[in-house]
Amino acid sequence: MVRVAVAGASGYAGAEVVRLLLAHPDVEVGALTAAASAGTALGEHAPHLTPLADRVLGPTTAQVLAGHDVVVLALPHGASGPLAAELGDEVLVVDAAADHRLGDAGEWEAFYGSPHAGTWPYALPELPLAGGGRQRDALVGARRLAVPGCYPTACTLALAPGMAAGLCAPQDVVVVAASGTSGAGRAAKVPMLGAEVMGSMTPYGVGGVHRHTPEVEQGLAAAAGQPVSVSFTPTLAPMPRGILATATARARPGTSADAVRAAWVDAYADEAFVHVLPEGRWPRTKDVAGSNAVHVQVALDERVGRVVAVAALDNLVKGTAGAAVQGMNLALGLPEGTGLTAVGLAP
Amino acid sequence: MVRVAVAGASGYAGAEVVRLLLAHPDVEVGALTAAASAGTALGEHAPHLTPLADRVLGPTTAQVLAGHDVVVLALPHGASGPLAAELGDEVLVVDAAADHRLGDAGEWEAFYGSPHAGTWPYALPELPLAGGGRQRDALVGARRLAVPGCYPTACTLALAPGMAAGLCAPQDVVVVAASGTSGAGRAAKVPMLGAEVMGSMTPYGVGGVHRHTPEVEQGLAAAAGQPVSVSFTPTLAPMPRGILATATARARPGTSADAVRAAWVDAYADEAFVHVLPEGRWPRTKDVAGSNAVHVQVALDERVGRVVAVAALDNLVKGTAGAAVQGMNLALGLPEGTGLTAVGLAP
Amino acid sequence: MVRVAVAGASGYAGAEVVRLLLAHPDVEVGALTAAASAGTALGEHAPHLTPLADRVLGPTTAQVLAGHDVVVLALPHGASGPLAAELGDEVLVVDAAADHRLGDAGEWEAFYGSPHAGTWPYALPELPLAGGGRQRDALVGARRLAVPGCYPTACTLALAPGMAAGLCAPQDVVVVAASGTSGAGRAAKVPMLGAEVMGSMTPYGVGGVHRHTPEVEQGLAAAAGQPVSVSFTPTLAPMPRGILATATARARPGTSADAVRAAWVDAYADEAFVHVLPEGRWPRTKDVAGSNAVHVQVALDERVGRVVAVAALDNLVKGTAGAAVQGMNLALGLPEGTGLTAVGLAP
Amino acid sequence: MVRVAVAGASGYAGAEVVRLLLAHPDVEVGALTAAASAGTALGEHAPHLTPLADRVLGPTTAQVLAGHDVVVLALPHGASGPLAAELGDEVLVVDAAADHRLGDAGEWEAFYGSPHAGTWPYALPELPLAGGGRQRDALVGARRLAVPGCYPTACTLALAPGMAAGLCAPQDVVVVAASGTSGAGRAAKVPMLGAEVMGSMTPYGVGGVHRHTPEVEQGLAAAAGQPVSVSFTPTLAPMPRGILATATARARPGTSADAVRAAWVDAYADEAFVHVLPEGRWPRTKDVAGSNAVHVQVALDERVGRVVAVAALDNLVKGTAGAAVQGMNLALGLPEGTGLTAVGLAP
Repeated sequence: MVRVAVAGASGYAGAEVVRLLLAHPDVEVGALTAAASAGTALGEHAPHLTPLADRVLGPTTAQVLAGHDVVVLALPHGASGPLAAELGDEVLVVDAAADHRLGDAGEWEAFYGSPHAGTWPYALPELPLAGGGRQRDALVGARRLAVPGCYPTACTLALAPGMAAGLCAPQDVVVVAASGTSGAGRAAKVPMLGAEVMGSMTPYGVGGVHRHTPEVEQGLAAAAGQPVSVSFTPTLAPMPRGILATATARARPGTSADAVRAAWVDAYADEAFVHVLPEGRWPRTKDVAGSNAVHVQVALDERVGRVVAVAALDNLVKGTAGAAVQGMNLALGLPEGTGLTAVGLAP
Repeated sequence: MVRVAVAGASGYAGAEVVRLLLAHPDVEVGALTAAASAGTALGEHAPHLTPLADRVLGPTTAQVLAGHDVVVLALPHGASGPLAAELGDEVLVVDAAADHRLGDAGEWEAFYGSPHAGTWPYALPELPLAGGGRQRDALVGARRLAVPGCYPTACTLALAPGMAAGLCAPQDVVVVAASGTSGAGRAAKVPMLGAEVMGSMTPYGVGGVHRHTPEVEQGLAAAAGQPVSVSFTPTLAPMPRGILATATARARPGTSADAVRAAWVDAYADEAFVHVLPEGRWPRTKDVAGSNAVHVQVALDERVGRVVAVAALDNLVKGTAGAAVQGMNLALGLPEGTGLTAVGLAP
Repeated sequence: MVRVAVAGASGYAGAEVVRLLLAHPDVEVGALTAAASAGTALGEHAPHLTPLADRVLGPTTAQVLAGHDVVVLALPHGASGPLAAELGDEVLVVDAAADHRLGDAGEWEAFYGSPHAGTWPYALPELPLAGGGRQRDALVGARRLAVPGCYPTACTLALAPGMAAGLCAPQDVVVVAASGTSGAGRAAKVPMLGAEVMGSMTPYGVGGVHRHTPEVEQGLAAAAGQPVSVSFTPTLAPMPRGILATATARARPGTSADAVRAAWVDAYADEAFVHVLPEGRWPRTKDVAGSNAVHVQVALDERVGRVVAVAALDNLVKGTAGAAVQGMNLALGLPEGTGLTAVGLAP
Repeated sequence: MVRVAVAGASGYAGAEVVRLLLAHPDVEVGALTAAASAGTALGEHAPHLTPLADRVLGPTTAQVLAGHDVVVLALPHGASGPLAAELGDEVLVVDAAADHRLGDAGEWEAFYGSPHAGTWPYALPELPLAGGGRQRDALVGARRLAVPGCYPTACTLALAPGMAAGLCAPQDVVVVAASGTSGAGRAAKVPMLGAEVMGSMTPYGVGGVHRHTPEVEQGLAAAAGQPVSVSFTPTLAPMPRGILATATARARPGTSADAVRAAWVDAYADEAFVHVLPEGRWPRTKDVAGSNAVHVQVALDERVGRVVAVAALDNLVKGTAGAAVQGMNLALGLPEGTGLTAVGLAP
């Protein structure tokens, strides 16, 4: 059995990691830690984790986290680097925060306003790379993993096949994505109250300022083999979970609808968690709720010369905790999908 | 491996059975059938069941259902009896419809307006019986199972401990329950449109006319050892899943709050799926979404002399498909919880 | 024109008062005040009040509120008494908080844990009184008004006709009510986050401890002419607004369904805002959203001898701000419905 | 008083017209008609219209609609033309369907697959025209009005200022819009059931095939003074009402953020219903619910050279029924905003 500790277990991302670990046949749940909630029972924060309701949260310190095979960090941005440094190379550290995702320190500093903590292998196994191969190869046997952001996972997987196949222009990609409100985390803020969000849609971080923007560009650039520019607009949708990303890119001249469809189908034909829907059916976030699946569909708008690709995923699973477990499996040499499901909870 | 067929797989109940069977380690999913949807792919109706998206639905006939170890019937009321008669006693038949739940043919005819099909063992294992013991005992080795209704499961488990312990009067029980809209099934009706139900609560079947009323009384009577009368009001809540049942009964004179709490805690101390929450915490339907768990809490209102018990469950899991699987496990001699989880999907 | 000030205009109740005043043909909106938000623009807190988006909130002091014809107090419980004392008897003070609702100082202290501020005329005009007449008579020309609580308005109007007509027993009333989450106010709390409340139902204040309990009993007692005891369980529903109250009372022996219906129809035949639905139709909270209407329906459950009455209203309108305006109209001698509508916003 | 008939009053659009007419001080509600629902009471379909609950719907015939000053047609596409022809020029006919919106018969036939019924003045008064002036001028005194589609209103008002000011390139506009589910109408369809749509986002009509696409292009072209090409992707959001349109266009070289903001503020400075929010605040659909207001915000993404404009409106009010009333007011010479409000229903 693999002993796994989770730091930040009282937040949405951390509790979701625990939820998945409880279903993982090779994992023993080890220490669960929190900051302000240390000393309280997990059931006060995550009563849905019925079997661990009485588990008391420890403080988030290297001492408490030591002695595990794997430590998953579900902490606010900026906290992962120092903690990871204390944990030793024999421990697999999976960082669900943004700290180690970006390869470009300047981008990090521009968007996050703090020193760059470094770059770890990017845990998006299904990403097709420009030169052939998949990002998966970089994860096998790794001791440090950067879990991708929820929006970047959706946007990248939506459009990467067209970039990798050279069917889409790398400039002037436009993405509008809708996220469930758990994406904003578990901090109590007036704009996130149920009375504010139910029945309402609103954008935020408009105009290229959302921190996931450079990560979307980085992911698509890995597929395209050249820089990609993205206009990214996130919106908040009245649902607890889920991301629907609508990503459009200019089609290269002469691209046919058949070629587009073939590129997408081929790109994910061997992937267990990324599912290109039959023609005519479009992804719904509900269909992937609670699962590690990504539902993808694509169309060519010949009138305007744009490819429109749509991906739906659960921001807390494939967008966070599922990616952490999937990456952990790869790093440890376990079957990649262990403890994960491609079956969503609908209706 | 146990081969299981599901009749009515394109409806909410049937698709939920399939969802659970996909996670059951000892089950092979056999024939999936439908009525009007026969000949179409499961993915058109239940795209969340990603691994079986291309499975074609067969017609609901005894021929198609023959040759399985288990047949789960998720059909409209009235269809189960004739079909079960054709299936033979060597097949375990699990009826998710109401046909075989009631022991009193007169009640059946009064509430359902058709001849009574018979009475099968009632698949509510955790129900404490008046003379001691549990309903579980009636399920081991059974070849026919009646899956309880979603409301009756919630109402019965909420209040049964007080009935079994003699702390609650059997007359004048009052239950008001809220259900997610999947409880109304998958038929297209204007009052069930999203635009109608979102942001709205409404009662229905008020005044003792809802068909689950005699079943609630039957379940509580089994715990009380005497007839129970219930005022039952169901309401429709703006959520896809979940039932929250608030059940109140007059406390016997001299009943203390401690005695009430002890009765509830004791009743479910050994149950894996029924969880009495710590004092001060109340059930939320979200915490049991997608799981077979029931969260229960109770209080004594000394001002008015009533016990108030609340249960939350997922109407499609513990309220239907989970109960079917749990009963199947018991009937087949498998560990009762195989393929089921007590961990909900929250937030 | 009547000049009206609103204290607490950045909260849900206060902003709703402003919303209604903007549609009131005889009102000029005067000072709008807040506590922590003083000095900020109303549009930061209530962007839906487009025409007053730039209005700057003043501090909640007697000086700022002075010089108006009417002052509506939408403040936390406990703040109204001292402030009202400073305002002078020439000003109509409408208190939307609980401070002045209860006639029994002992009940106040038991449920609120602070000294009783006094009792003002209870602004529920439609309440039928035991001796004949309506509560309306107490409001004409008043200089101080206590706005009823949202739950008490729904519960009282649901069941008062049966109490006033002597068809219902005053003991052992059982009420279960569902409220939209705006009822919890605008304070940022984790359990009220959208991700927590969407898709979920949960009870709270169970066992007779909710502060609205004695107010419900007081309202029904006024109709019954004798003390009434109520088991009251509030629940939180995944919707921003609305209350659905299901109130049951034992029917007096010999009561017929026709007599029940006649009592309800007669009680509200002349009321513009309380509407008894045609037989067979049940209230939906959506149908009264944004309006001052209350939709009511009733049935006699002859099997168990209980009357089941259901009322739906908008907790922020008829449950708070609409009642404030309706009471203000009565106190000032304006037509009672001025500036109010019985038309809801659906779907 | 102006006597107004509404054809199709049992649908969402028609009932919303009736809702607004009930608040219009110069209007008397005349005949209300329906197709299959003729002969039933309005309250069965629209119980929120409390004061007209008992009104019986007539059949949709020219005879029933004759004798009114105004007839609003809220019928399925294709039905308006023949009916309008029977009504005579002395009647103001306001068509809420698509039939008379498009100026290009070829576009109509390509997207709607039927003969073009003709082109009526397009009732979007606030639209700035390329040569100066507003679309308003075409509506004064008109006897026939085409109510714009809900998506086109949002998309056009979002981006028109940049087109009219020459700051945005007319090619390669990309719009992704989210709509509440009432936009799909009141027909009972499985994909629109509450259980399907709650908690879920999904796109539809992807790839340039949605019928509103040419209307969006037509509206923006009127502002730009040249053809505009738009990639338009509509999505369905889990809310009953509201549209949030995120519209991006390439900025002309040298365009500054200040110039962008100034163009938007100037374009709508004199408009009562279109409100450019203060910098840093973004539209929420909730803030305009039930109102005729449009909330707009814009940013320049200098990294990628795109203007991102966002508009929120209520699809049933400014997107349909409010536009009908606003146009009616202009045509009749009434003050444009009579009976309409810019105040939304939030929370």
